[in-house]
Amino acid sequence: MKTDYPPSNYTGQLISFEGGEGSGKSTQIQRLQASLEACGKQVIALREPGGTTISEQIREVVLSNKNIGMAYTTEVLLFQAARAQLYREIVLPSLEAGKVVLMDRTRDSSVVYQGIVRGFGEELIEQLNDISTKNTRPNITFLLDVDPEIGLSRREQADGKQGLNRLDMESLNFHQQVREAYLKLVKNDDRDRWVVMDANQTIDDLEEDIWAEIQARGICA
Amino acid sequence: MKTDYPPSNYTGQLISFEGGEGSGKSTQIQRLQASLEACGKQVIALREPGGTTISEQIREVVLSNKNIGMAYTTEVLLFQAARAQLYREIVLPSLEAGKVVLMDRTRDSSVVYQGIVRGFGEELIEQLNDISTKNTRPNITFLLDVDPEIGLSRREQADGKQGLNRLDMESLNFHQQVREAYLKLVKNDDRDRWVVMDANQTIDDLEEDIWAEIQARGICA
Repeated sequence: MKTDYPPSNYTGQLISFEGGEGSGKSTQIQRLQASLEACGKQVIALREPGGTTISEQIREVVLSNKNIGMAYTTEVLLFQAARAQLYREIVLPSLEAGKVVLMDRTRDSSVVYQGIVRGFGEELIEQLNDISTKNTRPNITFLLDVDPEIGLSRREQADGKQGLNRLDMESLNFHQQVREAYLKLVKNDDRDRWVVMDANQTIDDLEEDIWAEIQARGICA
Repeated sequence: MKTDYPPSNYTGQLISFEGGEGSGKSTQIQRLQASLEACGKQVIALREPGGTTISEQIREVVLSNKNIGMAYTTEVLLFQAARAQLYREIVLPSLEAGKVVLMDRTRDSSVVYQGIVRGFGEELIEQLNDISTKNTRPNITFLLDVDPEIGLSRREQADGKQGLNRLDMESLNFHQQVREAYLKLVKNDDRDRWVVMDANQTIDDLEEDIWAEIQARGICA
């Protein structure tokens, strides 16, 4: 697949949030959405996998605690299928309509979790990403970088043990590998789309840092 | 992906049945299974998409009449996800155990329906097939070649209109394209795995032709 990079046929902004469990992505997305709307932007916030009726059906299959026998390859393809539907139904039409799309995980999560940590290879996952996103990459990606022990303890406090899904239950070692994989991705990516944020700090401080970056990039300046 | 072709690490036989709707694949598979078992083979018969708990969940999503807004790319990836699970849970272990695996559609269906007719390209679909099957190709593929009008009228008689699923409801023109795509695939494939059968004839005559081919290839000779 030839990568159309960066995509040229939309006027909106695709801003993704990446990072391990408990890094605060969903909270920061809520706050950023409110701030962007206050300055007059049309904003849509999405999570992966999910966000459309069909993608939510796929999410149920891929994240169900009952499906412990799921092969890694199956998991890889299901995430991409949910993504393909979300991009075609919502992400791409919204970007073409000039909206700001905030995403709680997108293609980089697949590269990190499946390409690097699971060992499928970055190249293969990026090929699948190009198919599912129609060669779309975020304009800005905030990596909320958190110590895995802090992240996991936040998740447990918020949800209780029974609230953790299949992926959360993987070992701490796994989450440490995820963190290293994200940092490797940032290091090897030659674009300035990545913004690494210290997510060990308080929610309010992190929100302030993110908003400063948004303004520095001329969005709601 | 490098294709390990043909696969070398199993002693079983993978025999697939391909062809349009109403070509009689499921009936012939039932009969072949009985004949093979009568000569002492261990046989497992499978349909795609489906065949495992997880793959059946995916089948429900991909074939539901409610999901008419499904993007073609989503459909492509869901079929491959169901296939990945089926091969890892059942097909590959069965082949390694020396069984005969009879499949009602497999990778060639994706090439025909999605690669050629939908226009995704044969190469892309074959790449995905290699991922989902771990580079496995059938030892024999029976193409049950039926006139699309005869095939569709058989389906309607058997199931009634309400029994037709979303893919069946596509136009006759679509089914004619499917037939031509299969014949193109046979023509361009340099292996002798393809056996084209006249599926306009009676069930009994077709069964006889298939069994003759099985014996000619030294299986239950």
